[in-house]
Amino acid sequence: MQATAEIQMVPIGVGVSVRNEVRRVVEILNSSGLIVETHASGTNVEGELRRILRVIEDLHEMLHAQGSMRLISFIKLETRTDKTPTLAGKRL
Amino acid sequence: MQATAEIQMVPIGVGVSVRNEVRRVVEILNSSGLIVETHASGTNVEGELRRILRVIEDLHEMLHAQGSMRLISFIKLETRTDKTPTLAGKRL
Amino acid sequence: MQATAEIQMVPIGVGVSVRNEVRRVVEILNSSGLIVETHASGTNVEGELRRILRVIEDLHEMLHAQGSMRLISFIKLETRTDKTPTLAGKRL
Amino acid sequence: MQATAEIQMVPIGVGVSVRNEVRRVVEILNSSGLIVETHASGTNVEGELRRILRVIEDLHEMLHAQGSMRLISFIKLETRTDKTPTLAGKRL
Repeated sequence: MQATAEIQMVPIGVGVSVRNEVRRVVEILNSSGLIVETHASGTNVEGELRRILRVIEDLHEMLHAQGSMRLISFIKLETRTDKTPTLAGKRL
Repeated sequence: MQATAEIQMVPIGVGVSVRNEVRRVVEILNSSGLIVETHASGTNVEGELRRILRVIEDLHEMLHAQGSMRLISFIKLETRTDKTPTLAGKRL
Repeated sequence: MQATAEIQMVPIGVGVSVRNEVRRVVEILNSSGLIVETHASGTNVEGELRRILRVIEDLHEMLHAQGSMRLISFIKLETRTDKTPTLAGKRL
Repeated sequence: MQATAEIQMVPIGVGVSVRNEVRRVVEILNSSGLIVETHASGTNVEGELRRILRVIEDLHEMLHAQGSMRLISFIKLETRTDKTPTLAGKRL
């Protein structure tokens, strides 16, 4: 099933700046095969729902592996059966 | 990896009342094997991250199968490596 | 206009534990005059929309005043005109 | 206090398409005096926290006035005291 999503990873306890972690998130998303659009409050992606969920699992694992002790991700997932959901279709 | 999560499914276009859909979400979560705590703005769950993500995929598929044409899910996922995250541990 | 809401304050950079900040959030909400229900992923409140928004402003100001340098709040606000929204009415 | 925010308004019960409501949200935000950046999962804004919260109240009132019976808004608010938060500063 095709989906669009917004993903924001918030590392808790690495310090006031989380720029390195956000950069790593975008690198992982860019190499995921998903369509990726970054913005100031997260990253929008488009692709197979299962693939998106798998990448979210990878993000948690990879950021922990790089030293983040606590992570909260805020995710919006959208699916629809009347037409294929796309990021392009959600722009005005 | 163990995780806690909040899941809220919002069906778009089924009408002003979404009670049937919310009931179905809670049924699916209750039969998922995850620890489940419902509240007024979603359902909190605790379990394996991979299992939680798989159940989220099921929720989208099962609600579409029951007639919802458009679904947005709002999800918070929390993981940590300094101790095992639990719903009980997040209560004051 | 009456509303229900979920409020979660995430302090960035105070350390892996944010228990003191969460405790302070609940204290402020409990003294706000709003109906308050805490849970593992935030606090649900019920009351006048304007009052809720004012309390959210207070939360940011008061947590900064106590030493949090960076705050992200995740908020869900619900209003409806067909009936009065209540936390009780959103429980199954 | 200066803030950045993400605002997504979800009208429940107006139908599967919510394009008219989203268009109205962007019009209201564009005339708010805030800095506004639309994307596929919401609209990012920058300005005074109090002004942002006031505009969120307006959005609920104006969309109800135009016929939406039920509204959920999903909001992220960010403030920091170490430097002025800006949308530009949150881009990689």
